[in-house]
Amino acid sequence: MPAADGVYVLHDSRLSGNAWKVRLLLSHLGLPFRRVTYVLPEGKTRTPEFLAWNPLGKVPVLELPTGEALFESCAILCHLAEGTPFLPPPGIDRARVMQWLFFEQAEAVKPLAGARFWIAVARRPEEKAAEIAEWHAAGNRVLGILDARLAAREFLATDRCTIADIANFPYVAMSPEGGYDLGRYPNVAAWVDRVRRQPGHVPLIEEPTAAKESV
Amino acid sequence: MPAADGVYVLHDSRLSGNAWKVRLLLSHLGLPFRRVTYVLPEGKTRTPEFLAWNPLGKVPVLELPTGEALFESCAILCHLAEGTPFLPPPGIDRARVMQWLFFEQAEAVKPLAGARFWIAVARRPEEKAAEIAEWHAAGNRVLGILDARLAAREFLATDRCTIADIANFPYVAMSPEGGYDLGRYPNVAAWVDRVRRQPGHVPLIEEPTAAKESV
Repeated sequence: MPAADGVYVLHDSRLSGNAWKVRLLLSHLGLPFRRVTYVLPEGKTRTPEFLAWNPLGKVPVLELPTGEALFESCAILCHLAEGTPFLPPPGIDRARVMQWLFFEQAEAVKPLAGARFWIAVARRPEEKAAEIAEWHAAGNRVLGILDARLAAREFLATDRCTIADIANFPYVAMSPEGGYDLGRYPNVAAWVDRVRRQPGHVPLIEEPTAAKESV
Repeated sequence: MPAADGVYVLHDSRLSGNAWKVRLLLSHLGLPFRRVTYVLPEGKTRTPEFLAWNPLGKVPVLELPTGEALFESCAILCHLAEGTPFLPPPGIDRARVMQWLFFEQAEAVKPLAGARFWIAVARRPEEKAAEIAEWHAAGNRVLGILDARLAAREFLATDRCTIADIANFPYVAMSPEGGYDLGRYPNVAAWVDRVRRQPGHVPLIEEPTAAKESV
């Protein structure tokens, strides 16, 4: 397990949308970082050392250059974005960013990521048929709310791309893997393309290189 | 539906823990506010006017003195606490506050509030027996994490009461209504008492007075 050495160290997994958020922002901000990518079924996020960073045993965890470790993807976004255009100064614009960040965690992640996980990652949707039906109902409601919000605006919170967009992007962009039809939500589909075209965008999966990826 | 008139207007319900958070912070900060309390089954949070404030149709919604409306309880806390001791300035302490705010929404609310709702509010636990079993497993894990965090500290994020404590308090304090035994989590139980003893604390339910409560 690498110790902090003056740069950010992101502990992630290849398929985690929550970790993708953090890589997206690090890339947008041009912040150099080392990446430690876990294969979750191997259990290495359940070691005492990892649990000391995040008692939930989940990625992402960000080790700061000071050596401290942060968990909760959106808290990491807030910390990294402070003082940058991705998080406006205190006021109503920042409040809107925070509103859509909490919306993502409270309303969007579970139905969007849950359906994607069982359908496209675990590939055992029959084990969760009832939950998937409930997730699809809730997730389509979430997508409808986002579609209405984006009807007359380019980005979720303010007139530019903020961490509200970065946070909501991964699981919405990947929602078709979970059986959602973004064709029903044209404003969301256009926003997904818009966020993907931002300078600094990085895909979920990049070819690992020795310089960037350990484990 | 009252229009904004230069003070905060909190749209809440009598039993919502998410709304309780906001009343707690408004009280701690000594901010005057008017309160509009909904009886949720009456459907008045599903009107077009309410949905324009919060498309989820949920309380709390806070109307700001400027007339703008915010939803997501923790986003409201962040907005109100900015520049006060309840939200430290940017840095690691603020990052810890944000981490425990997102932990509450992502991990704690559903299992704690879900079990409480079906057992103590709706009083139809038999309809959700399987979910309640899952919530109890997840909720006890959450309470164990909080208990470990509070083993050597008085408050969740920093050395004083912050919005991280205000946000996590309501559903943890009410968790026994959902079948949780705080006797298993002595550090959590002591923290609940500690938060409750903070100056400015207000109970979930106060007797309504004509001056404070409409609807």
